[in-house]
Amino acid sequence: MTARAPGAATFFRSRWVDRPAHVEEADPAGLPGGFRAAGVAAGIKPDGLDVGLLVSDAPQTASAARFTASAVVGAPVTVSRRASLERMRAVVASSGNANVSDGDRGLETAIAAQAAAAERLGLVPREVGVAATGVIGRELPRDRLLAGVESAAGQLAHDAAAFSEALMTTDRGPKRACLEVALPSGRVHLAAQAKGAGMISPAFATVLCFLETDAQVDPETLDLLTGVTVKRSLERISVDGQLSTSDTVVCLASGASGVRVDPESDHELALGEAMDALLRQLALDIAADGEGARRVGRVVVRGAVEAVEPVARAVADSPLVKTALHGADPNFGRVLQAVGQALAGPPAATVRAVGDPALAGIELAEGGASPADDQLPVDLEIEGRRLVSGGVAHALDGDDLRALERDVGGDEVEYLLTLPGEGGETEVFFSDLSHDYVTLNSEYTS
Amino acid sequence: MTARAPGAATFFRSRWVDRPAHVEEADPAGLPGGFRAAGVAAGIKPDGLDVGLLVSDAPQTASAARFTASAVVGAPVTVSRRASLERMRAVVASSGNANVSDGDRGLETAIAAQAAAAERLGLVPREVGVAATGVIGRELPRDRLLAGVESAAGQLAHDAAAFSEALMTTDRGPKRACLEVALPSGRVHLAAQAKGAGMISPAFATVLCFLETDAQVDPETLDLLTGVTVKRSLERISVDGQLSTSDTVVCLASGASGVRVDPESDHELALGEAMDALLRQLALDIAADGEGARRVGRVVVRGAVEAVEPVARAVADSPLVKTALHGADPNFGRVLQAVGQALAGPPAATVRAVGDPALAGIELAEGGASPADDQLPVDLEIEGRRLVSGGVAHALDGDDLRALERDVGGDEVEYLLTLPGEGGETEVFFSDLSHDYVTLNSEYTS
Repeated sequence: MTARAPGAATFFRSRWVDRPAHVEEADPAGLPGGFRAAGVAAGIKPDGLDVGLLVSDAPQTASAARFTASAVVGAPVTVSRRASLERMRAVVASSGNANVSDGDRGLETAIAAQAAAAERLGLVPREVGVAATGVIGRELPRDRLLAGVESAAGQLAHDAAAFSEALMTTDRGPKRACLEVALPSGRVHLAAQAKGAGMISPAFATVLCFLETDAQVDPETLDLLTGVTVKRSLERISVDGQLSTSDTVVCLASGASGVRVDPESDHELALGEAMDALLRQLALDIAADGEGARRVGRVVVRGAVEAVEPVARAVADSPLVKTALHGADPNFGRVLQAVGQALAGPPAATVRAVGDPALAGIELAEGGASPADDQLPVDLEIEGRRLVSGGVAHALDGDDLRALERDVGGDEVEYLLTLPGEGGETEVFFSDLSHDYVTLNSEYTS
Repeated sequence: MTARAPGAATFFRSRWVDRPAHVEEADPAGLPGGFRAAGVAAGIKPDGLDVGLLVSDAPQTASAARFTASAVVGAPVTVSRRASLERMRAVVASSGNANVSDGDRGLETAIAAQAAAAERLGLVPREVGVAATGVIGRELPRDRLLAGVESAAGQLAHDAAAFSEALMTTDRGPKRACLEVALPSGRVHLAAQAKGAGMISPAFATVLCFLETDAQVDPETLDLLTGVTVKRSLERISVDGQLSTSDTVVCLASGASGVRVDPESDHELALGEAMDALLRQLALDIAADGEGARRVGRVVVRGAVEAVEPVARAVADSPLVKTALHGADPNFGRVLQAVGQALAGPPAATVRAVGDPALAGIELAEGGASPADDQLPVDLEIEGRRLVSGGVAHALDGDDLRALERDVGGDEVEYLLTLPGEGGETEVFFSDLSHDYVTLNSEYTS
């Protein structure tokens, strides 16, 4: 699913995500009961599938959605936000052109795609969401998109393979999974298809991600589960610290299994645990597939509530930490630098009252420079090895250094920072910064 | 001075910095009257000069200083902050090891260097500043540093060439200038030596920079001039958005010219204009020498006071904008994306009160989707060409696009953003993001 683990037999392959005991993996391109999907090549991208259509055939389908927080959003986001967020039944998703900054023309294109899908599927437009990813600031060819919707509507099947491929831009491969979830009163399925490799956010999932379940869930419960699990997964990753104009997450529940998930029930908890594991592994896959990425880091920060989030983001977004991760360089000094930046004050006013200008004979105030009182007492471990205690680096002997260098050359590298203060803890997953990132982004107009 | 302009005959070569009419360029390695300097190879770096010493021989020397705002600072910053900031007369500056996170040992090393320089120069330690740049988290060899101070003290001369070279880490060359400044009542000299190529800041000059003048200036006036001109120069650049642990600016005024600069006088204004031009060009040189950089961008943002700074920083620090600049790709969509990120709100709560779940027969609320009302009305020009008006991209014909592509392939590329609102205007200079940045930072422990 990513180049990092091409032969991986299982979806849950990270040590950072546990498969819940009541969850089994099914065919990754599978769909829960009640759903059909398709993906076609409509010529928006130079080649490959680029228009996807997903639909729930159940009239009582519940839905929930989340969108980018950016102040500049694509027309599809504008249109989807005004759809019936709790009763959506279908989604048109296209790749190659994000349909951003094209004014009324772009908005009309998104509305036209929504209307075309609704008509072909026997829905009203408000039941159809639209999403797009790709280049910003260019006209999305409306005729191709509409022809793609028409073609996809004729190919709908109980399979997400083509749909998930139609979401891809610089992704190395489709990101998808289908799980069988044992709820207390019966089995349901839960599937997801996502895309994301660059422009992966500091504040929200910069991805397209579609989830489907055949559990019977009311919209409020689905919204709650979606909100909580997205916060713990797609909102905790960074490839390049860049917030997209187009992030869209839609979760649909068809109810086709007949297994009901009541609010605040064991069912809700069990479904939520499955969604959580699914989205966390997908988020990790997105970070690991960061454009050109070789490995993925996880930074865990503990300490004062107000400090942990900016510090975790500063470490995850630092190009210096990311290039060191790329080079398998255990350069913990750059982690400390990022901590210092995150907790920086305003530039200090260094002017003092001018005293006697004649300094001759003044005693040296060495006593004033009490050792270490400028040092932030931060602890740092990398892959379980303590490298810094109370702001002071440990001396590593040759064996320790070689072991550390071996550890930071793996697929996953963990950083644990402990700051002063209590009560806060967070994590961010991030990719390294590679030559291929520069190549992709300096030679590819995206 | 940078690879960008190897044969440039003059220091003031950017179209973004005007040489004031009362300023002439002198030998770039020159020093104003009253100053001596030296640089030696002490073995802190594998090769090259790495310990510099600068001293004013005038007892009434005034000084001013600025330091990093980071919460994690090097021992040299701690020691210098406690020196006599307004009556400093000498500086020890070393490269190759920043002396950060080494606890009491690092602090004692910085104090020992300060004391050694003071003793050799007949000063008290409080009159000596220390500064260091290089790798973080490793022991700075005290014996080598002290031997370097001793050796440099024996080689002091009225020349800044070796001193400026001793500051370099990944810099492509020394950054220095010496100017002759015609003040109303006489000529003075103003010189500066700086280093900086990576870890160049979002909030403060992440450089070592030393300024000298033989004008006679009181410490308050010097502090005012230093503060204002640093804010307009070294605080307006970004290579990688990373705030250093070690930023240090020291300005020394020996008074050796006998030309007095009174507060709020024409002299003060004229000296300030010279310092401003000098520091702005040096700051540009640092951005242009950003690790691996091919060209330098300038983003100017106008609009609401509270919006211009975060937007300018977001554009300057965006790896997507930087890679496009590297590739000479006029990818204005990424500039809009950065604007959207800078002005992003918290993730919107998208849940709505659940109405009647039966949507059949509900009229399509297309009237609600009034065109363009989600679009931020931003204008964007690149190199004087209007590409976006009111948030909507212009269609470029082939000739316009080719002209734009040619313009963004030059040494300097200018972006002008106009946001809603009035009263704010700012600028940031930034480098591109290149393969060489990744190479330098994934293979070099810095």
